[in-house]
Amino acid sequence: MENSPLKTWPESAARLVAVAAGREAADLVIRNGKWVNVHTREVLEGYDLAIADGRFAYCGPDAQHCIGPDTEIIDADGAFMIPGLCDAHMHIESGMLTPAEFTRAVVPHGTTSMFTDPHEIANVLGLEGVRLMHDEALLQPINVFTQMPSCAPSAPGLETTGFEITPEDVVEAMNWPGIIGLGEMMNFPGVVNGDPKMLAEIAATQNAGKTVGGHYASPDLGPAFHAYAAGGPADDHEGTCEADAIARVRQGMRHMMRLGSAWYDVESQITAVTEKGLDPRSFILCTDDCHSGTLVNEGHMNRVVRHAIACGCDPVIALQMATINTATHFGLERELGSIAPGRRADVILTSDLTTLPIDRVIARGVTVAQDGEIKVDCPHLKWPTHARQTVNLGRDRVAEDFEIKAPEGANAVTVKVIGVVENQAPTKALTRDLLVVDGLIEGDQAQDVCQIALVERHLGTGGVTNAFVSGFQYQGRMAIASTVAHDSHHMIVVGTDRANMAAAANRLGEVGGGVTVFQDGKELALVELPIAGLMSDLPAKVVAAKADKLVEAMLDCGCTLNNAYMQHSLLALVVIPELRISDLGLVDVTKFELTDLIEDKE
Amino acid sequence: MENSPLKTWPESAARLVAVAAGREAADLVIRNGKWVNVHTREVLEGYDLAIADGRFAYCGPDAQHCIGPDTEIIDADGAFMIPGLCDAHMHIESGMLTPAEFTRAVVPHGTTSMFTDPHEIANVLGLEGVRLMHDEALLQPINVFTQMPSCAPSAPGLETTGFEITPEDVVEAMNWPGIIGLGEMMNFPGVVNGDPKMLAEIAATQNAGKTVGGHYASPDLGPAFHAYAAGGPADDHEGTCEADAIARVRQGMRHMMRLGSAWYDVESQITAVTEKGLDPRSFILCTDDCHSGTLVNEGHMNRVVRHAIACGCDPVIALQMATINTATHFGLERELGSIAPGRRADVILTSDLTTLPIDRVIARGVTVAQDGEIKVDCPHLKWPTHARQTVNLGRDRVAEDFEIKAPEGANAVTVKVIGVVENQAPTKALTRDLLVVDGLIEGDQAQDVCQIALVERHLGTGGVTNAFVSGFQYQGRMAIASTVAHDSHHMIVVGTDRANMAAAANRLGEVGGGVTVFQDGKELALVELPIAGLMSDLPAKVVAAKADKLVEAMLDCGCTLNNAYMQHSLLALVVIPELRISDLGLVDVTKFELTDLIEDKE
Repeated sequence: MENSPLKTWPESAARLVAVAAGREAADLVIRNGKWVNVHTREVLEGYDLAIADGRFAYCGPDAQHCIGPDTEIIDADGAFMIPGLCDAHMHIESGMLTPAEFTRAVVPHGTTSMFTDPHEIANVLGLEGVRLMHDEALLQPINVFTQMPSCAPSAPGLETTGFEITPEDVVEAMNWPGIIGLGEMMNFPGVVNGDPKMLAEIAATQNAGKTVGGHYASPDLGPAFHAYAAGGPADDHEGTCEADAIARVRQGMRHMMRLGSAWYDVESQITAVTEKGLDPRSFILCTDDCHSGTLVNEGHMNRVVRHAIACGCDPVIALQMATINTATHFGLERELGSIAPGRRADVILTSDLTTLPIDRVIARGVTVAQDGEIKVDCPHLKWPTHARQTVNLGRDRVAEDFEIKAPEGANAVTVKVIGVVENQAPTKALTRDLLVVDGLIEGDQAQDVCQIALVERHLGTGGVTNAFVSGFQYQGRMAIASTVAHDSHHMIVVGTDRANMAAAANRLGEVGGGVTVFQDGKELALVELPIAGLMSDLPAKVVAAKADKLVEAMLDCGCTLNNAYMQHSLLALVVIPELRISDLGLVDVTKFELTDLIEDKE
Repeated sequence: MENSPLKTWPESAARLVAVAAGREAADLVIRNGKWVNVHTREVLEGYDLAIADGRFAYCGPDAQHCIGPDTEIIDADGAFMIPGLCDAHMHIESGMLTPAEFTRAVVPHGTTSMFTDPHEIANVLGLEGVRLMHDEALLQPINVFTQMPSCAPSAPGLETTGFEITPEDVVEAMNWPGIIGLGEMMNFPGVVNGDPKMLAEIAATQNAGKTVGGHYASPDLGPAFHAYAAGGPADDHEGTCEADAIARVRQGMRHMMRLGSAWYDVESQITAVTEKGLDPRSFILCTDDCHSGTLVNEGHMNRVVRHAIACGCDPVIALQMATINTATHFGLERELGSIAPGRRADVILTSDLTTLPIDRVIARGVTVAQDGEIKVDCPHLKWPTHARQTVNLGRDRVAEDFEIKAPEGANAVTVKVIGVVENQAPTKALTRDLLVVDGLIEGDQAQDVCQIALVERHLGTGGVTNAFVSGFQYQGRMAIASTVAHDSHHMIVVGTDRANMAAAANRLGEVGGGVTVFQDGKELALVELPIAGLMSDLPAKVVAAKADKLVEAMLDCGCTLNNAYMQHSLLALVVIPELRISDLGLVDVTKFELTDLIEDKE
């Protein structure tokens, strides 16, 4: 599947056969472990594994006959041997890390396969951006597959992205070695309405024999849901309740249950298996989005599996949901996802099947992590210069760019305000009465209303869209700006003061993107994200520390929301109700149309 | 997958979406059935199915919105709606029927998908024979996939076949539209010993992304078994006991359990699921070999599923083993094997989930059988003349061809005798003392020893190999000849009289192959098998009636064995111990070498 030195099974078959038969020596033998068999759902005590060419050659009761003078031997000492964990759907960019640094962060947690959808970078750098992520993915010592992004822009006509993904792009990408399928088909209204472009992308993927990722973000399980299923998506991870889960698997889709940094969709859905008794084979675990802090402090897929077990799931079934179920879904069950002959030798040694401490991680037959420490290199791609210079403001912004003019002669106006809701992705479409000063509509800290601006940063048009937002509780004279602004990834600037807003915007132009907080004209925190304005190429620990400072700075400015930064970064996501901002204006996402800022022009 | 008028899912997606959404009318709606959901393992009462373009468009509680003025409506009246049944591994030739007539026989039993390995014809007509079977398969109204035969000859060096299958043939066949994988890799010693040709065939299949069929016919579950698994076969159907089943699924192989006309391997193995509680997903049901009489009188896959249920298997799990498990194994789970959107609309209506009466069979949205009667055409290929003239004797045989000369001056000799064992495929290597009359070794009805000959019939060499066989209890002056002679399919002639043996052989030369029984110079029964000497193109009922007469004739000659004809046809199968006959001589299948007929030359 990738450019790594790993040979294919057919290329290694003669050696694997010879090792299993005892005619040749294995590279590595693991002795005396408890084989967690995800094919049979058994835990088998006292088993050995022999590995050659990075693949399992022998999995049986005694590998003595596979041992030669140069064979490395690991005594598992009765530990459980579980397959390396798979994350079935995720966005590397959410960690603000490159594929290499994301890999380095998750390998010690036992992740050995990731199915990654680089749709953030697709909005910034188009097909080339996807290819760069794909190419760095193939350099890694574990299996990092790429799902070709399907929806850039996420809502055609409501926003302008840096690049667009076309059906022709999808056709081309299906021939790349690391492409495993189509990334989440977020344009579900398009599929339901028979949009030929969306159906063409699905067709290109199906014709290539690959897996179509789904994203049906609606509670409606009526005909629209059935129409979406009939369109071809093979999985979905947008369900939030048991009924969502059951509906999807009945339609022959695989149901992915998320535990991301901010998504908690496992507990409410796993009851479909643990209580309703549905066949677990169609259920899969994934993270979707993890911040670097989660990776550093809590874990990755091991965190998800542990959580599923804590929710009452049988440990081996939970492991199936993060190993063989995922592999089968992507047509890889003969390649990974279990400890069995011919498969990539990805195996974790753990002393406890419930708390799942990750004692040792072996990927492709090599010890890649031990006791939480990475043991191998995770190579960086040499990113081209233009991928590090994507913040194209055209010109510096000044305070006047953020002025919102009132209708002639008005002293007060009623405006639409984007209402942030604690712990939820949807916003509320609020209305607030604001005063006019010198012809300009002003925010109002007493009402928790400050300004929000969408600053064009792809084409250098110099454009700014201005509006109001409520919910952050910012106080004093401050601004926060970010080039992570799902999905179009222009720049979102929120602030109580126009001069600070301009300063924050210009600062990101200067460093090539990232997140910054300004207060009284001074920078309180900065996370530089030079690659596409989305990712740092520093290690996760460094990025997580910077992100911690960012949260502190937001707190200093009065914001007490959970995941305040994530709320900020989603305010331009024009596919989730009710009110959002884009480079084209204020967007009513209940009607999927642009709308006026001023509610009442009388 | 095939040349049928069925459109692919992507080709039909726009219509399927429109039907599910209620914008277009379905072709067919089935109302008010019990949806047997093999994804979730549920039975859901009161569901509707809407079908368009031969695929499911909507599977949900109410398809009223999919109905237009031209929509056909079937009231299921509370019947169970189960997916069409899949036979995961089988040889059409075993029915002595063409693909078309085999299809016609099994469709009323609810079979809608067959994974067929035409390795019998491969021995007679080579790659062209496989292609002819494949092409007739694609004409059928159900899904008949072809597994490319892997082992012709089955035992290189021990027999001469009409044609040989090479790795290059496998590479070529993988591009044919109906090829689903590699047929059973019977040369398991070859794989275990790293035979480059066998590994090349497996590699060609894996590189094409297709499924490698296995056949590990040994009770040895030690290193040889593990080496075979490491070689790449993805399934096996040769297990006969619970330990065999468990060993295979632990290795990540799918375990196929057979109920053929003469194979009874379900009851002894399904306990791995019903008693040991292994995850059922890796277990699959198949028939391997069915005689026409079984198809006419007992059923096909419905017989297997019923039997599995009778063995204590949960009915829905048994159905999974004949539907979704099979589809997943062959990479077809988005195409067939369940009742779900986008899949081929293959569905059976049945009033009882335990006894499984097949009330109505719908394939690709068309009613193909009702109340046991076929409702559609099963088109015949126009077989080329040379495929009907494969019995090339070179010259008529005479009684003298069957003389077995004794060593000079001997009055009696000790010879090796092939010992037929009731109800078992393996034979015993016996020794018997036989008298010499006029310099010829003679059979002895008192010891139940008669002659067996392998008559060369592919190249017209005129060759005859003579030996002795015991176990049939033939009396009087008789002979039986058959061009079905696994796997090389020369002609096996067994008889008590050399003149009758010659007459029987010549008769098959005259009719182009088949099976005939002669007694006292007169023909008692004849089954003509003109296509490759293996198949009739008459309907199953006609062939079954002729086969019944054949059994009667064998009984008239004194034979009381069960499946006597099958025992006859396997006597040249030089891969099953202990003693067999081939065109090259007598074969010791414990040592895989040719051996002398005469035990003791003193």
